[in-house]
Amino acid sequence: MATGDTTYSKILLDESELPTQWYNLVADLPEPPPPALHPGTHEPAGPDDFAPLFPTALIEQEVTTQRYVDIPGGVLDVYRLWRPSPLFRARRLEALLDTPARIYYKYEGVSPAGSHKPNTAVPQAYYNHQEGITKLTTETGAGQWGSALAFATAQYGMECEVWQVAASYRAKPHRRTMMQIWGATVHSSPSEVTDYGRSLLAQDPDQPGSLGIAISEAVSMAVADPLTRYALGSVLNHVLLHQTIIGEEALLQLAKVGETPDLLVGCTGGGSNFGGLSFPFLREKLAGRMSPTIRCVEPAACPTLTKGEYRYDFGDTAGLTPLMKMHTLGHDFIPEPIHAGGLRYHGMSPLVSHLHEQGMVEAISVPQTECFAAALQFAKAEGIVPAPEPTHALAAAIREALVCKESGQEKVILTALCGHGHLDLASYEQYLSGQMVDYDLPDEQISAALQGVPILD
Amino acid sequence: MATGDTTYSKILLDESELPTQWYNLVADLPEPPPPALHPGTHEPAGPDDFAPLFPTALIEQEVTTQRYVDIPGGVLDVYRLWRPSPLFRARRLEALLDTPARIYYKYEGVSPAGSHKPNTAVPQAYYNHQEGITKLTTETGAGQWGSALAFATAQYGMECEVWQVAASYRAKPHRRTMMQIWGATVHSSPSEVTDYGRSLLAQDPDQPGSLGIAISEAVSMAVADPLTRYALGSVLNHVLLHQTIIGEEALLQLAKVGETPDLLVGCTGGGSNFGGLSFPFLREKLAGRMSPTIRCVEPAACPTLTKGEYRYDFGDTAGLTPLMKMHTLGHDFIPEPIHAGGLRYHGMSPLVSHLHEQGMVEAISVPQTECFAAALQFAKAEGIVPAPEPTHALAAAIREALVCKESGQEKVILTALCGHGHLDLASYEQYLSGQMVDYDLPDEQISAALQGVPILD
Repeated sequence: MATGDTTYSKILLDESELPTQWYNLVADLPEPPPPALHPGTHEPAGPDDFAPLFPTALIEQEVTTQRYVDIPGGVLDVYRLWRPSPLFRARRLEALLDTPARIYYKYEGVSPAGSHKPNTAVPQAYYNHQEGITKLTTETGAGQWGSALAFATAQYGMECEVWQVAASYRAKPHRRTMMQIWGATVHSSPSEVTDYGRSLLAQDPDQPGSLGIAISEAVSMAVADPLTRYALGSVLNHVLLHQTIIGEEALLQLAKVGETPDLLVGCTGGGSNFGGLSFPFLREKLAGRMSPTIRCVEPAACPTLTKGEYRYDFGDTAGLTPLMKMHTLGHDFIPEPIHAGGLRYHGMSPLVSHLHEQGMVEAISVPQTECFAAALQFAKAEGIVPAPEPTHALAAAIREALVCKESGQEKVILTALCGHGHLDLASYEQYLSGQMVDYDLPDEQISAALQGVPILD
Repeated sequence: MATGDTTYSKILLDESELPTQWYNLVADLPEPPPPALHPGTHEPAGPDDFAPLFPTALIEQEVTTQRYVDIPGGVLDVYRLWRPSPLFRARRLEALLDTPARIYYKYEGVSPAGSHKPNTAVPQAYYNHQEGITKLTTETGAGQWGSALAFATAQYGMECEVWQVAASYRAKPHRRTMMQIWGATVHSSPSEVTDYGRSLLAQDPDQPGSLGIAISEAVSMAVADPLTRYALGSVLNHVLLHQTIIGEEALLQLAKVGETPDLLVGCTGGGSNFGGLSFPFLREKLAGRMSPTIRCVEPAACPTLTKGEYRYDFGDTAGLTPLMKMHTLGHDFIPEPIHAGGLRYHGMSPLVSHLHEQGMVEAISVPQTECFAAALQFAKAEGIVPAPEPTHALAAAIREALVCKESGQEKVILTALCGHGHLDLASYEQYLSGQMVDYDLPDEQISAALQGVPILD
């Protein structure tokens, strides 16, 4: 918009302003996060432990202490299909709430797959392709990650094989179709194509599956073939690194209108969307250039940061992954079937967990009916129908805007609208028909789930 | 992008560059289009004939000969939620096709409702609101128009009541949910709330409905209440006027990269997306500033321009609307159930029909399996999954790009990608599973359908 314009709805960046480096927060942390441990020896996991799963470039990014990592030209070429993404000023929502707060949202739903996930799917496909890998395998629950990887592999002419949790495979046929449009092969998990899947189907042909099972299938197919690797959509350091493009763009966009945020709110499942938005702002905060409060928002039914414990745990249910120090509800914990499928994870990114432990970020939890009520207010005012995951951030932003209404404070609130809800309308239907419920999670249930976690510190 | 940049994927306009006037092609036509006729008297229809249905401002726009119409500030405020929309250079598709042609697509799927329809839904709601109307009624088939009007009325705090064709109401529950999110009331048509609907349900409770029936229900509810009006999503002059914002933006965007189109291709159902893109370019052509070929693309199963006749016919099946001179297959013609529901219309915008009759635009038809094959190529290369309607334009663009590959011509092709296909994935599923069929439309069937059309010229 023109300088001094006070009517703008969105702040765009030209493609020439697209950031060309990802930001690695680890380089600036006063204290480094604890290392991942080998699941068998409990010694710090080294590059060799990851080599059957990931290409060298990503393993290096996982442990690098370099402050900035250059984004390859072959990734930027694909990013330009939708990036830079727009930053919106939610003027109509502000008016609806009658708040003096100024609310900004960074919208990642403009990506082909409809969420922030392609920000890391594209470089993951790129680096694998560079190292001669021809196929990627992965798991998907709600379907956002599988869609993103299907899109990304198509850009480099690679194959993609996705294990979609059986319950989701049946309930969300349109997500499957989207992956197939981009050329991916999609299996219901447990599947007939892996030993583990066959063994589970032999016990129960109607087995609904789980993310843990789907991960096991995808991993087993990757390690069995030298030209195949596995891709993970959240949690790990290299994933969060790639997502920092969100925050880097948002910094440039806010600067264009002379704004500095007082509060950042982002939803947290595995932590990649939250980290992507907040890490560049944390750099600015650590450098004393701004001082925003940074708040994680998680579902009340899966309160990893607010009710979990900070300790070493496995990333998957079967206990095959390295042990990571993180906030966890226990790797056996199965969250209730809330609509924000992308936030149903027992653990949390080790990096985000570390920040929370260090007091650098705070966390709250919100029940899903409050989230959908916020989503309806948002959709009516701003037009966009949000995915269930970012409705958590919207609910928290609205809470704060209403506090500002009481106090008269003109806070600048920044949030990440990490995806659209076009493939989640069945969730809205349930809310509109009055049938959505909230889940109470008793503390005893959490204590019980945590009993299966090895004690290593 | 920066001047001289040759790598850009998209050309953005800043909000400050948003056009502030719609363009009225009628002002520049060598010969005016024939007037609409009253269905009873067959005399030219006057403003009074439209007054029970539309607000004064829209009736004036329907017949104005002014070259430009100012876009009200209250409309621009809402347009800014997604406009200016991006213009993409389809570099990755060009590479896939190995064509020297340069392909550009103007993407309207960024609107909250996911298509170009809000471009007219918003001003229609605005003008009604200005004149004290509190509710709008309409019909919807595929659901794009109903969604757009639900979104638009929410922006002005108006009520919206939509009659959705029963077959679509049952098959597309997510479209209904989307309308309800924005606060609309959605009825399956025929419905119990109108006399006409009740009479039809009494005969057959499982009656699948039709657009003609839904129009009758929406119109009857509008005329029965002085604070309610009816809204139409295509065909009429004022609708095409509002859509010219698409072409005006595209002109500015192409100028930024120094391009002049050699060919425009747009899909045609009622004609509003096609007119919106092409009319500003036709102005430039009439003024001798460029000379693009301008091509309508219609479904082979509903070949209004390529096989219909140019004569007076009704806009609806029941014969309640004014008679319009247009290309028609006969108002009794029921197209086969192709997936591009938005192109299943027996007639064509009188203005587009007039241009075709004058030789100012040409037309071709394409079978739907060719369209979906084109859509897959496009989605894999460019990421975006298109709605079934614009796949017709994509198929035609690809045909031309392949001709350029043979001839070596570096043509500049511009097309309109008028919506995303996120709510049309069931259609893709049918295509991917090999079950999609093309429909042959024998000439005798067209002749038969045309026999019921009154002869007035």
